[in-house]
Amino acid sequence: MKHLLDTRDLTREEAINILDTADYMRQVGLREVKKLPALQGRTVVNLFFEDSTRTRLSFETAEKRLSADVINFAAKGSSVSKGESLKDTAQTLAAINADAIVVRHSASGAPQRLAEAGWIDAPILNAGDGTHAHPTQALLDAMTLRQFQEQSRGIETRGAALEGMRVAIVGDILHSRVARSNLWLLTTLGAEVIFVAPPTLLPVDIDDWPCRVFYSLDEALKTEPDAVMLLRIQKERMQAAFFPSGEEYTRLWGLTPERFAQLDSADHETAILHPGPMNRGLEISAVAADSDRSWVLRQVNNGVSVRMAVLYLLMTGGSADDFYSH
Amino acid sequence: MKHLLDTRDLTREEAINILDTADYMRQVGLREVKKLPALQGRTVVNLFFEDSTRTRLSFETAEKRLSADVINFAAKGSSVSKGESLKDTAQTLAAINADAIVVRHSASGAPQRLAEAGWIDAPILNAGDGTHAHPTQALLDAMTLRQFQEQSRGIETRGAALEGMRVAIVGDILHSRVARSNLWLLTTLGAEVIFVAPPTLLPVDIDDWPCRVFYSLDEALKTEPDAVMLLRIQKERMQAAFFPSGEEYTRLWGLTPERFAQLDSADHETAILHPGPMNRGLEISAVAADSDRSWVLRQVNNGVSVRMAVLYLLMTGGSADDFYSH
Amino acid sequence: MKHLLDTRDLTREEAINILDTADYMRQVGLREVKKLPALQGRTVVNLFFEDSTRTRLSFETAEKRLSADVINFAAKGSSVSKGESLKDTAQTLAAINADAIVVRHSASGAPQRLAEAGWIDAPILNAGDGTHAHPTQALLDAMTLRQFQEQSRGIETRGAALEGMRVAIVGDILHSRVARSNLWLLTTLGAEVIFVAPPTLLPVDIDDWPCRVFYSLDEALKTEPDAVMLLRIQKERMQAAFFPSGEEYTRLWGLTPERFAQLDSADHETAILHPGPMNRGLEISAVAADSDRSWVLRQVNNGVSVRMAVLYLLMTGGSADDFYSH
Repeated sequence: MKHLLDTRDLTREEAINILDTADYMRQVGLREVKKLPALQGRTVVNLFFEDSTRTRLSFETAEKRLSADVINFAAKGSSVSKGESLKDTAQTLAAINADAIVVRHSASGAPQRLAEAGWIDAPILNAGDGTHAHPTQALLDAMTLRQFQEQSRGIETRGAALEGMRVAIVGDILHSRVARSNLWLLTTLGAEVIFVAPPTLLPVDIDDWPCRVFYSLDEALKTEPDAVMLLRIQKERMQAAFFPSGEEYTRLWGLTPERFAQLDSADHETAILHPGPMNRGLEISAVAADSDRSWVLRQVNNGVSVRMAVLYLLMTGGSADDFYSH
Repeated sequence: MKHLLDTRDLTREEAINILDTADYMRQVGLREVKKLPALQGRTVVNLFFEDSTRTRLSFETAEKRLSADVINFAAKGSSVSKGESLKDTAQTLAAINADAIVVRHSASGAPQRLAEAGWIDAPILNAGDGTHAHPTQALLDAMTLRQFQEQSRGIETRGAALEGMRVAIVGDILHSRVARSNLWLLTTLGAEVIFVAPPTLLPVDIDDWPCRVFYSLDEALKTEPDAVMLLRIQKERMQAAFFPSGEEYTRLWGLTPERFAQLDSADHETAILHPGPMNRGLEISAVAADSDRSWVLRQVNNGVSVRMAVLYLLMTGGSADDFYSH
Repeated sequence: MKHLLDTRDLTREEAINILDTADYMRQVGLREVKKLPALQGRTVVNLFFEDSTRTRLSFETAEKRLSADVINFAAKGSSVSKGESLKDTAQTLAAINADAIVVRHSASGAPQRLAEAGWIDAPILNAGDGTHAHPTQALLDAMTLRQFQEQSRGIETRGAALEGMRVAIVGDILHSRVARSNLWLLTTLGAEVIFVAPPTLLPVDIDDWPCRVFYSLDEALKTEPDAVMLLRIQKERMQAAFFPSGEEYTRLWGLTPERFAQLDSADHETAILHPGPMNRGLEISAVAADSDRSWVLRQVNNGVSVRMAVLYLLMTGGSADDFYSH
């Protein structure tokens, strides 16, 4: 594994190795001194062509916990806007001997281009590109689902995959890199993925994807999923003709107080996930967001651990075996 | 002391403990290697919902001198503007295990809300909220006043309060968090506070505040204050109907060259303070700002020491006794 | 050498000492752990009144490789825009005990003012001021030219000057701090400098400068320069009356594919330099930019080494002898 571009490229073994390493990193985060010296003297550049406070914060925390030197490079107001191409930016980062590049870009495929064009030799970590992929988000979701399995079914996390789990992902699948990255990763780990969306918010080739599709959240919930992941509604898309009105969206696809009450009282335990930030009252009700069923804060917490794991694995060539003897 | 929200909450003993610790931190700043390892491996997040170069710079310097890992989070262009609530932001910071939050917000009460809502367990340091409070500014002012007492009256700083001092604070008291925080802290430390302002720039309930009020700077100076603190005029407020014209303001409430000459030649020694940045020629003349009477640069210097002290005390549970045996 | 303001102030010995130190720093950058502890516990402030992603990135990398604490201070949106003068900013940085200031400013002379006004005692490093000077850019160019000499003529870099070299600098000389700083440094090091520009883009007093002038790039290339440095065209200037059209500029002063082919096939070896970021297709063709003749990426790489060297020399009082015994 040289880069982390897309969960579609990950083997089951690679994915489990990342999750096991992330489990170890989580323990580091709980210590008094939360740092490991693993990346001392290495420079990580956070190259953000698109704003993202949460993801940048999470990566920066992970990098500093591994003792890396961190350089933030927000492409807004930079020479990129003066006409510098992606190529020149990459070559600049290569020329200063950056040891890893975390890249966020509004264009699908930009991280792949960086990784494959040969401009730079350092590992590229995709922190979200267009509607294409967001691999660390899917990995933190998988880590959270393993923790849910441990809690609800007593399955020890280390070495575990997600066989037998059913995960419903609800919202604007068409534009969601989170949905795509979860689809590939969760199916690789043996889970079943259900997409729930209005027909206008699904890709036209959805029949070719390895998932079941429901147009109704109520119907989807009847399948008793182990987890329901509500996607964030991008409010700027709500003006578009293909988008249901906010009221309609909440009524048909939102985790309303009524739906939550039903889910909360069922025998079958269901975890609630959301990549954040949440639009309370739109795709998720406050009561659901703040309930014991919600794993949203665990997701954020796991994000730092997963990013530490991926940085560690890509930059040192290590593996989970460095920490655990199997 | 779990948080630092408002100087109104501080006991005399707590305030003196902070100032004594700050004295020690000042010595650290004068060393060749200015750092202490006290916060190694801890993460401090500077959460600035409102621009403030000086305050952010001062906190960041303090944090790095204590060897903390620093993450700057400017809320502009962040997911906060995408509709994320203060609650979600706080929970995110909790989820990444931030060890302390320095918060600046344009809304009065935001830091209190962060501290008291139970969203996050880390110490909250108020770096200025609306017109409410700016406790580290008041603490650095008190530290500066102790140094002035030492220089002018030979009172050793360590352990000292401010008994017998008279401090005139001049300007837009109505909108000033600096004036409020100084009022509570300086009176707790035994000083007398005088507010000097146009009637339209005083709170309506000013009679209930523990201070004397003057509408005329000339009258106030007749009381022979030990210190005169000129507040910064917010130029955007000068268009408002309740605001005197710039010329009128300077003539009646500015520390003009004439007033300064009088003050400079008096037998009674008076220190000049200003929270910065100064509008030279408006609330303070250049000759006063750059004179030997001016303690403005000492204030900035003390700002780093006070912030180091507060971070140290809140994050380690230590006290000035760690450095001094009384 | 107390500050680095302008290459015009540098003696030949000082310049060679910086370049020799930079050679050593380059080796540090190639190590597994790229850091030196030289500036541990010291604070460097990057005070950028003007955007510059590349230069800031390069300085920040250099500072972190020397283990300094780095504070970035972008003057946009700061209290500078609230009316704080350069003086107040400088005094603030002095008051927090900043150990060095890297300053970029749109006004020619601002770094000199900072250095000479006595507001602050720390070394000032000019990172580009108006149309006046950009000394670290010229130093990294000279470092690159030494490497070119070594490769093409077998002259060992250490201790070497640039005697016998001819360097053609092409473009908007009138507004270029890069051209000015190179002129002084390269002639100090014994090279001959040729300026190539449209008459409207040359200073009126160009006859007094120690350089040859050509209005035609084709004529200049007949002198068989050892290096051709293409200056970046500032697109915002291209609307001005004194500026040739883009098409005309490229035809007469651009390193077009045709000119590059001629230069590439000549017996005399010529290095291509550009301060970046490049406008491919305008002042330089893509084929030239990406050819083996291009030293552009070596320039970027050398930039970090040169900045490490200057920071080291100014902040520790050391010299290249600390690393080499001559």
